[in-house]
Amino acid sequence: MPETSDRKDDHIRIIEEEDVETSGAGFADIELVHEALPEIHRDEIETTTTLFGRELDAPIVIESMTGGHPNTTKINRALAEAAQETNVAMGVGSQRAGLELDDEALLESYTVVRDVAPDALLYGNVGAAQLLEYDVADVERAVEMIDADAMAIHLNFLQEAVQPEGDVDARGCLEEIERVASELSVPVVVKETGNGIARETAQRLADAGVDAIDVAGQGGTTWSGIESYRAAAVGASRQEHVGKLFRAWGVPTAVSTAEAAAVHDCVVASGGVRSGLDIAKAIALGARAGGLAKPFLGPAGQGTETVVDLIETLELELRTAMFVTGSASIDELRDADYVTLGRTNTYFEERGL
Amino acid sequence: MPETSDRKDDHIRIIEEEDVETSGAGFADIELVHEALPEIHRDEIETTTTLFGRELDAPIVIESMTGGHPNTTKINRALAEAAQETNVAMGVGSQRAGLELDDEALLESYTVVRDVAPDALLYGNVGAAQLLEYDVADVERAVEMIDADAMAIHLNFLQEAVQPEGDVDARGCLEEIERVASELSVPVVVKETGNGIARETAQRLADAGVDAIDVAGQGGTTWSGIESYRAAAVGASRQEHVGKLFRAWGVPTAVSTAEAAAVHDCVVASGGVRSGLDIAKAIALGARAGGLAKPFLGPAGQGTETVVDLIETLELELRTAMFVTGSASIDELRDADYVTLGRTNTYFEERGL
Amino acid sequence: MPETSDRKDDHIRIIEEEDVETSGAGFADIELVHEALPEIHRDEIETTTTLFGRELDAPIVIESMTGGHPNTTKINRALAEAAQETNVAMGVGSQRAGLELDDEALLESYTVVRDVAPDALLYGNVGAAQLLEYDVADVERAVEMIDADAMAIHLNFLQEAVQPEGDVDARGCLEEIERVASELSVPVVVKETGNGIARETAQRLADAGVDAIDVAGQGGTTWSGIESYRAAAVGASRQEHVGKLFRAWGVPTAVSTAEAAAVHDCVVASGGVRSGLDIAKAIALGARAGGLAKPFLGPAGQGTETVVDLIETLELELRTAMFVTGSASIDELRDADYVTLGRTNTYFEERGL
Amino acid sequence: MPETSDRKDDHIRIIEEEDVETSGAGFADIELVHEALPEIHRDEIETTTTLFGRELDAPIVIESMTGGHPNTTKINRALAEAAQETNVAMGVGSQRAGLELDDEALLESYTVVRDVAPDALLYGNVGAAQLLEYDVADVERAVEMIDADAMAIHLNFLQEAVQPEGDVDARGCLEEIERVASELSVPVVVKETGNGIARETAQRLADAGVDAIDVAGQGGTTWSGIESYRAAAVGASRQEHVGKLFRAWGVPTAVSTAEAAAVHDCVVASGGVRSGLDIAKAIALGARAGGLAKPFLGPAGQGTETVVDLIETLELELRTAMFVTGSASIDELRDADYVTLGRTNTYFEERGL
Ligand SMILES: Cc1cc2nc3c(=O)[nH]c(=O)nc-3n(C[C@H](O)[C@H](O)[C@H](O)COP(=O)(O)O)c2cc1C
Ligand SMILES: Cc1cc2nc3c(=O)[nH]c(=O)nc-3n(C[C@H](O)[C@H](O)[C@H](O)COP(=O)(O)O)c2cc1C
Ligand SMILES: Cc1cc2nc3c(=O)[nH]c(=O)nc-3n(C[C@H](O)[C@H](O)[C@H](O)COP(=O)(O)O)c2cc1C
Ligand SMILES: Cc1cc2nc3c(=O)[nH]c(=O)nc-3n(C[C@H](O)[C@H](O)[C@H](O)COP(=O)(O)O)c2cc1C
Repeated sequence: MPETSDRKDDHIRIIEEEDVETSGAGFADIELVHEALPEIHRDEIETTTTLFGRELDAPIVIESMTGGHPNTTKINRALAEAAQETNVAMGVGSQRAGLELDDEALLESYTVVRDVAPDALLYGNVGAAQLLEYDVADVERAVEMIDADAMAIHLNFLQEAVQPEGDVDARGCLEEIERVASELSVPVVVKETGNGIARETAQRLADAGVDAIDVAGQGGTTWSGIESYRAAAVGASRQEHVGKLFRAWGVPTAVSTAEAAAVHDCVVASGGVRSGLDIAKAIALGARAGGLAKPFLGPAGQGTETVVDLIETLELELRTAMFVTGSASIDELRDADYVTLGRTNTYFEERGL
Repeated sequence: MPETSDRKDDHIRIIEEEDVETSGAGFADIELVHEALPEIHRDEIETTTTLFGRELDAPIVIESMTGGHPNTTKINRALAEAAQETNVAMGVGSQRAGLELDDEALLESYTVVRDVAPDALLYGNVGAAQLLEYDVADVERAVEMIDADAMAIHLNFLQEAVQPEGDVDARGCLEEIERVASELSVPVVVKETGNGIARETAQRLADAGVDAIDVAGQGGTTWSGIESYRAAAVGASRQEHVGKLFRAWGVPTAVSTAEAAAVHDCVVASGGVRSGLDIAKAIALGARAGGLAKPFLGPAGQGTETVVDLIETLELELRTAMFVTGSASIDELRDADYVTLGRTNTYFEERGL
Repeated sequence: MPETSDRKDDHIRIIEEEDVETSGAGFADIELVHEALPEIHRDEIETTTTLFGRELDAPIVIESMTGGHPNTTKINRALAEAAQETNVAMGVGSQRAGLELDDEALLESYTVVRDVAPDALLYGNVGAAQLLEYDVADVERAVEMIDADAMAIHLNFLQEAVQPEGDVDARGCLEEIERVASELSVPVVVKETGNGIARETAQRLADAGVDAIDVAGQGGTTWSGIESYRAAAVGASRQEHVGKLFRAWGVPTAVSTAEAAAVHDCVVASGGVRSGLDIAKAIALGARAGGLAKPFLGPAGQGTETVVDLIETLELELRTAMFVTGSASIDELRDADYVTLGRTNTYFEERGL
Repeated sequence: MPETSDRKDDHIRIIEEEDVETSGAGFADIELVHEALPEIHRDEIETTTTLFGRELDAPIVIESMTGGHPNTTKINRALAEAAQETNVAMGVGSQRAGLELDDEALLESYTVVRDVAPDALLYGNVGAAQLLEYDVADVERAVEMIDADAMAIHLNFLQEAVQPEGDVDARGCLEEIERVASELSVPVVVKETGNGIARETAQRLADAGVDAIDVAGQGGTTWSGIESYRAAAVGASRQEHVGKLFRAWGVPTAVSTAEAAAVHDCVVASGGVRSGLDIAKAIALGARAGGLAKPFLGPAGQGTETVVDLIETLELELRTAMFVTGSASIDELRDADYVTLGRTNTYFEERGL
């Protein structure tokens, strides 16, 4: 088994067994203002939204997680079947293994998603660091691999910096992102993986022409934390130490959502999103949709119906929040009033939001 | 036994047995400024106030709670006898069962209140959602049922949304409220049931001509919490889940009181009011009276004297607060200085209060 | 034994045995700014100050506590001997028993202080409520009783309100205070007893011509708390309840000090002052001296030397604070920079300080 | 063994055995803003900086700690060997014993540092209070003792005030500092020892011409705490008490760093610096380097390699922080954005930073 594939397997195991989540996403500091007289019918609220030119039944994204190891086929199948059934968006994990290795079983872990979800909004995934090695045609191959509706380029330099073997050359990435964004056949979303995207960075991405930004902020799954466990396992104690120190590094998701939305009109909020209420808050902060990764992992192991059940629960929670804020549509929810408390309030003041 | 009647019985049992209160009403964040030299005689302080054109001995409201099941007759009798004895206001619970069902024992659970309290300020109760089915004459029947001095119309859409069988159509309610307010023979108070009323909503209610607003804010009894227990009991796990998620949803009572008082001159503060000191704070925030529901439930089960004792304790607490703020009357208390701390302070800043 | 005398005995016992202190005086929220280069000699710092026209070796006041029961003679003797030895100020407890009862042993509990402290600044104590019954000549008798250098008039209406037998008529007090202040042979200090004095009240006292204000703010000994225990002991459960509810009522001492100092130039800070560092902070906030009551009670029971030891410790703590803020005198300390944190910071903002 | 030498030994023992650190340095309240797209190569980041005209490989200072007792030779050897190997700066502890006593073994505890670190930036240490007794030639002897590249003058008046035998005459120090700064053959850094330096004091030091300021703020090692333990050991209970009371006295390190940097361009941040991330935050706040004392003590006892290992870990942590803030050099890091939370935020507001 090649390195990138095994690594994916390590990650999944650590995420299932260890404490890999931080608090502080900031949604608990956001309180939507109650509308006692909503003047709408809950069941006629429109939760549909448009992402990458596609209409979704709800502004819910199953975030990029897996693929690249035969063990992950089952997970991706369940997620994709659920995405198909509920018409929400889904990303696959990094396609590096799929692009670089020639292994049918491994490839299937990606291709399964389109096989079982012919109509869902599915998007691919490559790392920004890989763009330095790939040309646009390689990325196009990743699109074709799953007949993707969009392509995510992930930024994960802190994670790389904690890995003993990490790729810590971030030079020239923006230029590559700009090129891919302008030449690729499908829309491009740039995403972080747990440390968020500040307004200044979001502005540079907007200027580079990316179609969407997924903030993947601090709060929720922590990759520095995960790599710290992995470093511990191989006795790399200095990396273990650094991973712990930066465990909760980054722009909190709620803050990052507001920051990115200040400069780009298509923002996905992820990182510690844990309910449809969090999604509603993210949308009030300016997001177009909310994404979850880790909460889908357990259900995916249990099968499609469990994933569908989670999506329907999220959908009802979101719908309930829309009802009691008097929001008949996602657009109205975006205008909902909210109050910002605690640390998030200070963040907003300090960052001029 | 019809559904609405049984449901009332369920509710009472859950409220007695489970944890159905949230913190966060905000009164702990309000500190009245001490007057070391009050220049009044404590026992000559006037606690009288006028509500719906009626003078009360103290600005205390026994909030709408029960009726609609024969088991509740005893509770309503004790509450009403105490209201009569102490000259405070009292509401009955939703009169839906009384209006829709033809059952003498059940009806008595409402009518008992006027029987034992010929002189007290008693007010009726119907749901805003029911107004879509009722015409003004039906509401007038509810008035007549207890010879009510006023009629409360309750807003409880979050509760409905958590109930598996809930009524989640909120369309047209404001128009119905406006019609009832203009045509009914008695004053109309619109009340929430634990999630509060924001300034914008209060403004719409003021424009619709309602005579009073009872904020029933977040803090204190939580109906989403109660319905979550009820959903759990019938295995409706998605509703149970949603109920928990929205357990502490809403505008905190202290905030809601200030918001509503900014646009309406007759505001009752309820939701987590737990002492005469809380009532004093509510009045300083702009309320005309403070109401309590749950704290009266236990005493009502023990009998009239226990309810009277609680009212007298509340009255002494309020009087003491008036004494040490140098307030000789409720009007003077309304002008008392206070300091706003913590989360409530942030809320006030964020909401422009 | 007459009532007022026995009551004093009850109080002392409760104070020794129960939890009668609240936190929240606010000194922990005040941080004096360190001066790394003080350019003074610690042992040449001048801690002397002038109070009621008398020079003290240190701005320390043994607050009004006791007298009126033969048991308290020993306490007052130890306190007064220590005041004499260290040249700090000392107050006696309410002289009501001494003025109203004819009992040599009882009287001695007051007169002992001047017997053993011929040179100390000693001040008398009467209640504002008693002024309604006394004429100035009566107060003059209280002065003579201990050859007092000043007379304290205490405000304790919350305490009275919690006592079953309390005196809750506060009418006309200010006028009486004004008369006593203008006619009495010695300076008059008006003091609270644990609930503080707000700026508006301090202004009225300043206008009435009082010579000093002792804030005795919230934090430290709580008389509502003490009376709550006493009410419990006699089964007066409503008073017990009210006492608990108002346990931490009042203007926090640090806030009250700043408020009173904004309108009067002779302010004593007391209520939860627990170290010479607290005294230093109080002076930076505008006080002329800091006073302590409860912390002296235990030492007084042990004898004069233990009281002297406490005063010397307070003095060294104050001197150390002056040293590391570069304050060569009390006047310089009054100009020391400080930072206001937490709840006290919010209080200052809300109260416009 | 003379007093100053024994005292050093006492200190080291207490620091190793007791709790001598306070929290509150403030770095936890500072959050650097994540740069998701750093556009640099982590391993090509320049961490070099210039201090006292010397280039260091990293902005790390081994703070002044020891020397003056034969037992400390081993510690200083390990620290100096590591400084030589990694090219960071190192200070020795107070040279008073070395200057005043004639003892070869004792002198070696200082001279060892230059013997094993011919190329490292080493700086000497004298107390500001000693300058009143020394002339510049004496200080020059301290420079020669270790062929120092710079000389630290420490301010520790709170510590002195807590010692029973302390030197509490701070008069004339600034003038002496000014003279030494202008006449000494090497640059002069004035440092606190755990209580910080406020802006006003830093301004006076800047005006006196000192070449650098090491804030040594509140947070981390507390000398009042240490002296409190020492006082306890000799039964000096009043000093023990005062030491505890002032345990956390002073300007928090993060605040002091910003204050000093507002008026001097060469500031070293120390006092509770505990990681390379703290150093990065200090630099963003305006420091030129970060220093640690206590964290080096244990490693120094274990030997040179353990010290080198700690320095390399600090270096990697700092480098990682620079990477994820997109800072290619220390100068760029100084411009990094940060958010200030909690108590430190209030401090900044109150102090006009
Ligand atoms: C198991 C797992 C695997 C992930 N793999 C990838 C990945 O391959 N590519 C990527 O861009 N993000 C990946 N992520 C990050 C998520 O897409 C997302 O940015 C973030 O973790 C969402 O936070 P949450 O897990 O707190 O909901 C992964 C997250 C998890 C939990
Ligand atoms: C047992 C119980 C029953 C209630 N029933 C009704 C009702 O039928 N109609 C209504 O408008 N409000 C009802 N309420 C809500 C109260 O009138 C009020 O709005 C709020 O709960 C007061 O909060 P508190 O219980 O924290 O004091 C009920 C509350 C309780 C505790
Ligand atoms: C035991 C005791 C007795 C007191 N008696 C009186 C009194 O007779 N008259 C009075 O003005 N204040 C009295 N006080 C209040 C103090 O003078 C002072 O205002 C306040 O309690 C100081 O707070 P502290 O105890 O927290 O230091 C008494 C306080 C104590 C602790
Ligand atoms: C064991 C030890 C000995 C110290 N000795 C001295 C000293 O002799 N002279 C001095 O200027 N500072 C001395 N300091 C203070 C440090 O140089 C520095 O100012 C501060 O303690 C750094 O804080 P930290 O220990 O929290 O990192 C000493 C600190 C420690 C821990």
